[in-house]
Amino acid sequence: MAMSATTPHSLLKNPTNPFKPTTQIAAFPTTSSRHHTTIQKPISITCSSAATTTPLQTTPSTSTSSDRVFNFAAGPATLPENVLLKAQSELYDWRGSGMSVMEMSHRGKEFLSIIQQAESDLRTLLNIPSDYAVLFLQGGATTQFAAIPLNLCQPDDTVDYIVTGSWADKAYKEAAKFSKPNVIWSGKSEKYTKIPSFDSLEESPHAKYLHICANETIHGVEFKDYPNPKNPNTILIADMSSNFCSKPVDVSKFGLIYAGAQKNVGPSGVTIVIIRKDLIGNAQPITPIMLDYKIQADNNSLYNTPPCFGIYTCGLVFEDLLAQGGLVEVEKNNKKKAQILYDAIDGSNGFYRCPVENSVRSLMNVPFTLAKSELEAEFIKEAAKEKMVQLKGHRSVGGMRASIYNAMPYAGVEKLVAFMKDFKARHG
Amino acid sequence: MAMSATTPHSLLKNPTNPFKPTTQIAAFPTTSSRHHTTIQKPISITCSSAATTTPLQTTPSTSTSSDRVFNFAAGPATLPENVLLKAQSELYDWRGSGMSVMEMSHRGKEFLSIIQQAESDLRTLLNIPSDYAVLFLQGGATTQFAAIPLNLCQPDDTVDYIVTGSWADKAYKEAAKFSKPNVIWSGKSEKYTKIPSFDSLEESPHAKYLHICANETIHGVEFKDYPNPKNPNTILIADMSSNFCSKPVDVSKFGLIYAGAQKNVGPSGVTIVIIRKDLIGNAQPITPIMLDYKIQADNNSLYNTPPCFGIYTCGLVFEDLLAQGGLVEVEKNNKKKAQILYDAIDGSNGFYRCPVENSVRSLMNVPFTLAKSELEAEFIKEAAKEKMVQLKGHRSVGGMRASIYNAMPYAGVEKLVAFMKDFKARHG
Repeated sequence: MAMSATTPHSLLKNPTNPFKPTTQIAAFPTTSSRHHTTIQKPISITCSSAATTTPLQTTPSTSTSSDRVFNFAAGPATLPENVLLKAQSELYDWRGSGMSVMEMSHRGKEFLSIIQQAESDLRTLLNIPSDYAVLFLQGGATTQFAAIPLNLCQPDDTVDYIVTGSWADKAYKEAAKFSKPNVIWSGKSEKYTKIPSFDSLEESPHAKYLHICANETIHGVEFKDYPNPKNPNTILIADMSSNFCSKPVDVSKFGLIYAGAQKNVGPSGVTIVIIRKDLIGNAQPITPIMLDYKIQADNNSLYNTPPCFGIYTCGLVFEDLLAQGGLVEVEKNNKKKAQILYDAIDGSNGFYRCPVENSVRSLMNVPFTLAKSELEAEFIKEAAKEKMVQLKGHRSVGGMRASIYNAMPYAGVEKLVAFMKDFKARHG
Repeated sequence: MAMSATTPHSLLKNPTNPFKPTTQIAAFPTTSSRHHTTIQKPISITCSSAATTTPLQTTPSTSTSSDRVFNFAAGPATLPENVLLKAQSELYDWRGSGMSVMEMSHRGKEFLSIIQQAESDLRTLLNIPSDYAVLFLQGGATTQFAAIPLNLCQPDDTVDYIVTGSWADKAYKEAAKFSKPNVIWSGKSEKYTKIPSFDSLEESPHAKYLHICANETIHGVEFKDYPNPKNPNTILIADMSSNFCSKPVDVSKFGLIYAGAQKNVGPSGVTIVIIRKDLIGNAQPITPIMLDYKIQADNNSLYNTPPCFGIYTCGLVFEDLLAQGGLVEVEKNNKKKAQILYDAIDGSNGFYRCPVENSVRSLMNVPFTLAKSELEAEFIKEAAKEKMVQLKGHRSVGGMRASIYNAMPYAGVEKLVAFMKDFKARHG
């Protein structure tokens, strides 16, 4: 089905998502003296077809400035359109409560119903066993880099890190403050383009845990399966920030999974920790109380005021993922999106290149370069004119990066691929 | 001016706030299959007059369930209605950017403009000197209870705490993990109803800092001025979580001021730290990187992904406070609101009682009890029927508590006072 340039975005039916809104928000002008007045309008986008090779228009579209862009940012990242509209409709008055979620006491019945439903839906999505606690925390995955060794080992304990990219490296470096970490494998010399084979890993015999970063947001390498630590007492820990809830995961393989919300499941400011309950309760004496999993678990993440609006938005996303059919369906869609993008790169006769080894390419973050690197700035500029934004690669690696999380529509990747072909035709 | 029961809330003119919206949000039904459908309607409230003694209707009003309540919660707490409407209008598409603030890269030009404007407006509001850094952090004031000693002293350094209530006590206890804290005054034996006279304080001669909680949210005691540490090398630190931006403050008296946003300036999930720059850079080696003020200051609060939507909302509040005329005007309004409430308590011939010493009663949190304590549950229940919610006192002290932060309208306090008089007439 080819979409015309004037098809309202909200009418782009997603057959896997019955939850998708079909009405558009009404205009609601404000009369603020200092604020801009924003009028919501039905969205029109330029969208190529999946099935045809219709050349993409490369002239700026005539749509208005209030159009929704395709946002390829690595995080915070695009959120489901229906979640945004739902959050907007409820912002001023949550379901007849007479108040915004932002105004609710975190100990009131309204917010308790929100956080409990969010936890329940997440447990359903990931099939989280009952002997695991789910914590909604603050501070991002970077705070967990400290909290993990502080809670799970003593200062002289050995812990193992597999360093597949910048994030695993940061986690390792922070752990050195609170434990004795070993890097048992590093992909640095190969510019973080690989995941090791697990058989060859030389694990520390008494490691308290083995830490991996399940998906490296910057380098675009992703674990497709997970190591089983050789020592049965060594627990597996994964930073899943950038592929959390993008596919089913066997939680029971892990002692702890953690993720910043701002890639796949919500806005920034919420960090989710899933931890086997028997691992809770042994924090080092120097652990700040807010980083102590026992305090957080005993208080159901309400020891102090949690990031309520963020948790609420995560809850809307979980609800949406369930309505899509759960993570099996979500993974199918993510594979389809990644496939057409990697195919476009690999089929470009070297015009585009992805440095990552084929078998471990991320479904979420797709880094690529141009053989003619002098054209990269032009590529990013032209794409932005076409309302495809945040395609610049991380400053540490350069090139381009398309982050295509759960909420990136298929149409967005399709449009990017069409643009890439058109750009190659003009510059190849 | 007496308001009728059907006066639209949005037409309650606030003469000090030209920024107040006068239009009402339009209906925007959603078609979600699982979500409730919320239809926004013009607000109608029952509101007594400031000048008359018209008895309050005690029968439930006929207004619909989407009416806005008067929310006396201690935090998260009521936010300015115009800020909520503004945030709602921009949620789906921030000022023509084609994306929500929740979706923006924290390193993109759009979000940078938001955080920079928020900081600039806060600096204007509090007249923050240029040798102070402003940090937007996560984790609540409770995280700062650890961050402060971790950043400002070594493990054997002495630090002083004035304990005027539960929050100062928690700060003191956390500091014992990372320093040698002394309680130089405690109000515990008098049930936290007083602030000490500063002359009588026996400060530690070499204390690195003197910590106070400027307003105790639970106990309702508030510092009206601030101690000058006798040792010129001892810096003054204040937890201002529950009276931040409620009145002008001479920032230069302090080495560090910190506040959770969720009382006066925004939603939960944002913590603001204002710190004199020369105090930055001496964190203990065991400081988690996210708690290190130098890391946060060097990266303009963007070392990792900050709570973007929360910071944006704080920015809207700062803008609103400036539009009201700044903190001098804000304090005037807060004094008026507190005055009529304390007058109602003190003029009740003992039917209502506030335990706090007159001179240090909080403008923000007003705890009170009933002489007939068996009526307290009834009071709270009847008030809730009148759409005045969250009046129950903290579980640790009982009774009632009315939190009347900046965003609580005068009409809300007026309505509460009218209700109190009516309740007394019926039960006195």
